Amino acid sequence: MATKISPLAPAAFPDLPVIGGVRFASAAAGVRYKGRTDVMLAVLENATVAGTFTRSATRSAPVRDCQSKMAQDEGGPAAFVINSGNSNAFTGRVGEEAVAGICAAAAQALGLPEGRVFTSSTGVIGEPLPWERIAEALPSLRDALDAGGIEAAARAIMTTDTFPKGASAEVRLPGGTVRIAGIAKGSGMIAPDMATMLVYVFTDARIGRAELQDMVSAVTDRTFNRITVDSDTSTSDTLLMAATGASGVDVGGEPAFAAALERVFLDLALQVVRDGEGATKLVEVRVTGAASEADAHRVGMAIANSPLVKTAIAGEDANWGRIVMAVGKSGAEADRDRLAIRFGDITVARDGFRAPDYSEEAASAYMKRQELVIGVDLGIGDGAATVWTCDLTHGYIDINADYRS
Amino acid sequence: MATKISPLAPAAFPDLPVIGGVRFASAAAGVRYKGRTDVMLAVLENATVAGTFTRSATRSAPVRDCQSKMAQDEGGPAAFVINSGNSNAFTGRVGEEAVAGICAAAAQALGLPEGRVFTSSTGVIGEPLPWERIAEALPSLRDALDAGGIEAAARAIMTTDTFPKGASAEVRLPGGTVRIAGIAKGSGMIAPDMATMLVYVFTDARIGRAELQDMVSAVTDRTFNRITVDSDTSTSDTLLMAATGASGVDVGGEPAFAAALERVFLDLALQVVRDGEGATKLVEVRVTGAASEADAHRVGMAIANSPLVKTAIAGEDANWGRIVMAVGKSGAEADRDRLAIRFGDITVARDGFRAPDYSEEAASAYMKRQELVIGVDLGIGDGAATVWTCDLTHGYIDINADYRS
Repeated sequence: MATKISPLAPAAFPDLPVIGGVRFASAAAGVRYKGRTDVMLAVLENATVAGTFTRSATRSAPVRDCQSKMAQDEGGPAAFVINSGNSNAFTGRVGEEAVAGICAAAAQALGLPEGRVFTSSTGVIGEPLPWERIAEALPSLRDALDAGGIEAAARAIMTTDTFPKGASAEVRLPGGTVRIAGIAKGSGMIAPDMATMLVYVFTDARIGRAELQDMVSAVTDRTFNRITVDSDTSTSDTLLMAATGASGVDVGGEPAFAAALERVFLDLALQVVRDGEGATKLVEVRVTGAASEADAHRVGMAIANSPLVKTAIAGEDANWGRIVMAVGKSGAEADRDRLAIRFGDITVARDGFRAPDYSEEAASAYMKRQELVIGVDLGIGDGAATVWTCDLTHGYIDINADYRS
Repeated sequence: MATKISPLAPAAFPDLPVIGGVRFASAAAGVRYKGRTDVMLAVLENATVAGTFTRSATRSAPVRDCQSKMAQDEGGPAAFVINSGNSNAFTGRVGEEAVAGICAAAAQALGLPEGRVFTSSTGVIGEPLPWERIAEALPSLRDALDAGGIEAAARAIMTTDTFPKGASAEVRLPGGTVRIAGIAKGSGMIAPDMATMLVYVFTDARIGRAELQDMVSAVTDRTFNRITVDSDTSTSDTLLMAATGASGVDVGGEPAFAAALERVFLDLALQVVRDGEGATKLVEVRVTGAASEADAHRVGMAIANSPLVKTAIAGEDANWGRIVMAVGKSGAEADRDRLAIRFGDITVARDGFRAPDYSEEAASAYMKRQELVIGVDLGIGDGAATVWTCDLTHGYIDINADYRS
């Protein structure tokens, strides 16, 4: 695949701070791809681990394994072993054996309990994972561990991604400064509820497991669960977060830490949308005035997932009638005569009718931008939600009609 | 628009039988298009009328008007006045006045009560309908009424359709023979629950209004509500059915009549999928073994609406992993280890794993067909449902990124 880098990509991979207590390594294990890295290892000296996962009924063996380990996690040294090229999904009992094989090899190479090894796999569904290749790479991965290896790790987990994704934050608290650094992969199948996305976030903050999990779940709901590329949902979505405590700073009950975490999650989530397969425009859909937040989310996702809305955006067509259509089909409470629609600052429709001062010319000029904001006010209540999507272009068809991802 | 005829189109418009008690006329009223007809009139000497409509919360003024008239229908002479080019949706009070204007003009021209004039409009959303042009055309439409005008009527209601759609059936009953003839338009926004589709079905059978409505609702659920092109739902979907009784044959309680009606509905529904925007393949998704019929329908629609499944089909890629993904995201009860997937007669996966005798070559050869059957057995219960869709191609993007429909 000689895929061009998304036109919406950031200029460069960001400088991520070193997180005390975490080291990374990457390798080319030959899972499926040739001539590139496809396995990353992150080793945590001592950490609290939390996570969120796909809700798919056909979720993969590694997801199920992480979920069961997460439920009984008690802290201590840990490792994340992630591969690209093969998702180990719909591989039956053979898939469970592959996960067990990788965990056993990592536990042995690193001197950890198997229960503290968390794995993810991303790539083709339904083919047996050649897990021995990953197991055999583990001793040399251990020997190559490096606190500065996070960018290479971000590259090793890419599949159809056109750029590696990273984000970070520093939070100054009375007790000292804590750092957050995260990496992600994902470019298609990004909705609802996370979808083909792998996300690994590390912090040197000190925080209890239950509080970390609550924070991660809440922040995921407002970030990764509010983005969509094509409405499809992966069998492998995984977000793992590790807090090493190496800074010695306790962040329990600190809203500034939760806010910084949300910025990091949202930055990574928007990078995933920016790398949406074939995307040429980043679209923010702001829904207000809904009967409830759930209704606002529903309307936002109906708009963000509508092929007719997404193709109109690709064609730079200010086709607001398709927004009306999507509101109507969403299932949310709506009243035609109270609906207002804006493209950026341009009021297109209001009180159930085209705005009297609507200028097709101004709206068309706005649609030529690379980043768009669509505002929808339902005029009914106080429910609000913002979701993000991209346009639907020939590039999406190119990538997905010909590539066995 | 110089759109090529869909490769899935029937060879020709079928010969439809004349239905006693119905006459048709078409005209070029200049609603939006140039150089083609855009209004059809059907006049019923005396008829029972039933219908089904979009569930959109932003449904159009003509849909709301039909629904309110349908609720108090008492039979007698009636007329259908349908235009293409403008859907009169999201046009506020002006839209209601347009419907009233057309109904008044038709009532006057035809000597009918306004409550027996049913209108539909299809085309661009959010622009005021120039209804006076339709009203002015009504006297000459009345003068041109012809029992054989049904094919021209089918052409007048087309928007992005690449071919006119018609279907018919004859049913021999102990009391005599009855005929059914129907026409439809639709090519995108076809799900769930009918979507941009206008359907008009006529029969010379005699049947009571309540029974006709029950039959139409039940048959719509198994036909028009089981097709999808792009998961989007129109604000204008309308199916109107008129029974003139001109044959003198009572069909109340006759299962043969209901079965024939279902064949006509299904034929028209599949023609709509065959004309799906950019479609090159017709896909039947047969779901069995679900916990309930609702679950089977849910799984079928998740597969039929998945952009990743539909692009894989466009690329003739036997990517069954994407079927697994769609089952998983559907929300239906599923057990990975009981799932079986077939492409035609080829068992691809069974018991949660790739079939031992699976041949990628055979599956790839099958995918080259123009008409495909995907079988999914959930292995849980007796729920079954069949839905129909088409592939997602560059043609869909071409049509929808550049055309203000």
